[in-house]
Amino acid sequence: MNLMQLVLPKGWLMDFAQADQPLLAKTIDGLAEALEMETPLVQCLTNNVTVQFVANAILAAGGAPAMVDIPQEAAAFAQVASAVYINVGTLHADQRDSMEEAARVAHERGVPWVLDPVAVGALPVRTALCLRLLEYGPTVIRGNASEIIALSGGTDSGRGVESGDAVDAARLAAQSLARDTGATVAVSGPRDLLTDGDATYRVGNGTAMFTRVTGAGCALGGVLAAAVGTPVNAPVLQTVVATVLKYTIAGERAAKLSRGPGSFSGEFLDQLSAITPAQILAEMRLS
Amino acid sequence: MNLMQLVLPKGWLMDFAQADQPLLAKTIDGLAEALEMETPLVQCLTNNVTVQFVANAILAAGGAPAMVDIPQEAAAFAQVASAVYINVGTLHADQRDSMEEAARVAHERGVPWVLDPVAVGALPVRTALCLRLLEYGPTVIRGNASEIIALSGGTDSGRGVESGDAVDAARLAAQSLARDTGATVAVSGPRDLLTDGDATYRVGNGTAMFTRVTGAGCALGGVLAAAVGTPVNAPVLQTVVATVLKYTIAGERAAKLSRGPGSFSGEFLDQLSAITPAQILAEMRLS
Amino acid sequence: MNLMQLVLPKGWLMDFAQADQPLLAKTIDGLAEALEMETPLVQCLTNNVTVQFVANAILAAGGAPAMVDIPQEAAAFAQVASAVYINVGTLHADQRDSMEEAARVAHERGVPWVLDPVAVGALPVRTALCLRLLEYGPTVIRGNASEIIALSGGTDSGRGVESGDAVDAARLAAQSLARDTGATVAVSGPRDLLTDGDATYRVGNGTAMFTRVTGAGCALGGVLAAAVGTPVNAPVLQTVVATVLKYTIAGERAAKLSRGPGSFSGEFLDQLSAITPAQILAEMRLS
Repeated sequence: MNLMQLVLPKGWLMDFAQADQPLLAKTIDGLAEALEMETPLVQCLTNNVTVQFVANAILAAGGAPAMVDIPQEAAAFAQVASAVYINVGTLHADQRDSMEEAARVAHERGVPWVLDPVAVGALPVRTALCLRLLEYGPTVIRGNASEIIALSGGTDSGRGVESGDAVDAARLAAQSLARDTGATVAVSGPRDLLTDGDATYRVGNGTAMFTRVTGAGCALGGVLAAAVGTPVNAPVLQTVVATVLKYTIAGERAAKLSRGPGSFSGEFLDQLSAITPAQILAEMRLS
Repeated sequence: MNLMQLVLPKGWLMDFAQADQPLLAKTIDGLAEALEMETPLVQCLTNNVTVQFVANAILAAGGAPAMVDIPQEAAAFAQVASAVYINVGTLHADQRDSMEEAARVAHERGVPWVLDPVAVGALPVRTALCLRLLEYGPTVIRGNASEIIALSGGTDSGRGVESGDAVDAARLAAQSLARDTGATVAVSGPRDLLTDGDATYRVGNGTAMFTRVTGAGCALGGVLAAAVGTPVNAPVLQTVVATVLKYTIAGERAAKLSRGPGSFSGEFLDQLSAITPAQILAEMRLS
Repeated sequence: MNLMQLVLPKGWLMDFAQADQPLLAKTIDGLAEALEMETPLVQCLTNNVTVQFVANAILAAGGAPAMVDIPQEAAAFAQVASAVYINVGTLHADQRDSMEEAARVAHERGVPWVLDPVAVGALPVRTALCLRLLEYGPTVIRGNASEIIALSGGTDSGRGVESGDAVDAARLAAQSLARDTGATVAVSGPRDLLTDGDATYRVGNGTAMFTRVTGAGCALGGVLAAAVGTPVNAPVLQTVVATVLKYTIAGERAAKLSRGPGSFSGEFLDQLSAITPAQILAEMRLS
């Protein structure tokens, strides 16, 4: 809780385009530079469906992925990783134990980590695990609207995810989850919502093609881990905003060059690896 | 057993092109429409080699894949899934247990499900599992000739799979397996064979490129699950024929646009997501 | 130990371009022909990150991959496989046991097998496993410089991997590992190093794009298994040299046709499946 939170109404949207554009430009530049200099080592404990796409996206975004997700090794590796990405999409026994190990070590050592609570609330094993993982203070939580609402304990406004804008329906839940956990929360959807509980941003960039291939959300989670594991002189929320812009603009550019979901996947990795800070600043739609 | 089976000789091939073309056209149209309206939720318990390709193919074909394959969650999810796809290609311990859970629940609740008995007969663990799974009455069984022969208990004509047309050698086995289990059986090969034990069809569409990438059979299994999980007013065999036509014609179109197996994978997903009923009817080769 | 080893100084580089070019040309031709005739069956026990890419690369290179990696089945399949590929990248419990099974059977039956000791030395579970696997006499060991140094027990010259040419730093370790184990050792890097402990070759072909997608090393391991599982009348080292040339030249050609890492993956499989012995001989850079 800080002063800002007390004086601003909940749900308040910063006019980022006006107020924070210089800071954002600096973050986007600094992040690009730091990723090139440092190549953050991102430990991933993620589902086996999209694991290759996650690894390739992290590489394209400037990180080095390492899928170390068995007991003993997970804890050892979390001590040397720049960041940890935990995605509970498929939870085989070894993975479950190693996720707790890695999150605990990350928490103890101050290693930034990202939680991707796939289908939390809908299925028993992952729901229980996600609640335990929350205690290790994730740096970022990335999910879709219903996942964020479920993880926040149902503190949404009651409009439910069937509302016209599902992401909008998750706004209060996301802000509450951010305040309760200290995490920056990223809600993926047609217009991503990003909040640290105080400030809240919406990203208008993106493409429906992200919903036509598997793993676009998972890969964003991995790329966010690379970003928050990179030494850049900016608050986590700024880094998350800069990264979501980069990711969604790369998606827009790829969609224009694609003939369908099969060609989109390859184009997207090409664009993600090539996009420049100037292109991000020129094409971003942020509110 | 129905009357038709009693009066028609075994191995009888319907002249589908003449007799059933209007019904088939209606099924192809109805399926395309229903997939667009309903987006069937397909629970997949499948091997970790091709799982991403299966998910992307289901998306391209109009379904929504969910790879829920751990104990407890598998049973819970099967209750809400539109269809279940079980592929025994890689059988880690958690997967084995959850496949039995999911098949049991699907059977009890009347959820359509597809069995893909990869390498059954050749390896001990999967062979035992497939025999247990058969008791839960799969809606569709999809495999290559030797898998279908093995699963049928070796009731083939004795010509063996070394014959010029391996799929042909599996005809009697496929028909017998369909009658014994109540499943519609799809035998993949140069010319796919589809049977419910009474009527039997051969699809002349396809491409050798399907054998040069991993997962073309698995993805067909997943796409078949999406189709039989979609409310369309047609017998399962009609739905399977319509789906195999769509899949193999998309493959033909992709092969023409590809320079090799690497570009084929992407092209295939593009084509699968774009193909129209009119194109299927114009290009199909069915007997 | 053979006579050649006794009379030649350690680290000696054969002038392959002059001395062995005819033998190499014969190996490249013979291998291409044998792969087309025989389609070696390659059992893979490999990490779940890049498993699909490994399977597709083996297919593109002319082999038939089979990912059989659970206890009981692994031993049964190793008896009929042409070659076995073991990659310890992700080591879930079932996989660990089945790797030992498969390596033991391969050793007993004389089935060639390839070990890919991913991250050995850095993490405890895989390091212990790799040391046990070494006792089953791998035919080929493929890794990056630090993996080969770690596996050799640190017998490198002490220059460490931070030297300008990391592969060069692993030369003595690779030669020592080859002599101690009887394996041919392939060190991947900007210029691959290949040795059987006596002769040592460097391959100048390749592309930095191999480092920008996940699985280029794993796929090479699988393709090497296909090659040494193919009946070709040449020493293992010759077969390995021929295969690394084919693989790295396909990579070079693909890189020229790609716009980034996403398009590279597809182009690479296309090139790998199409490359001819004449192209390899014309474009190879070997010392």
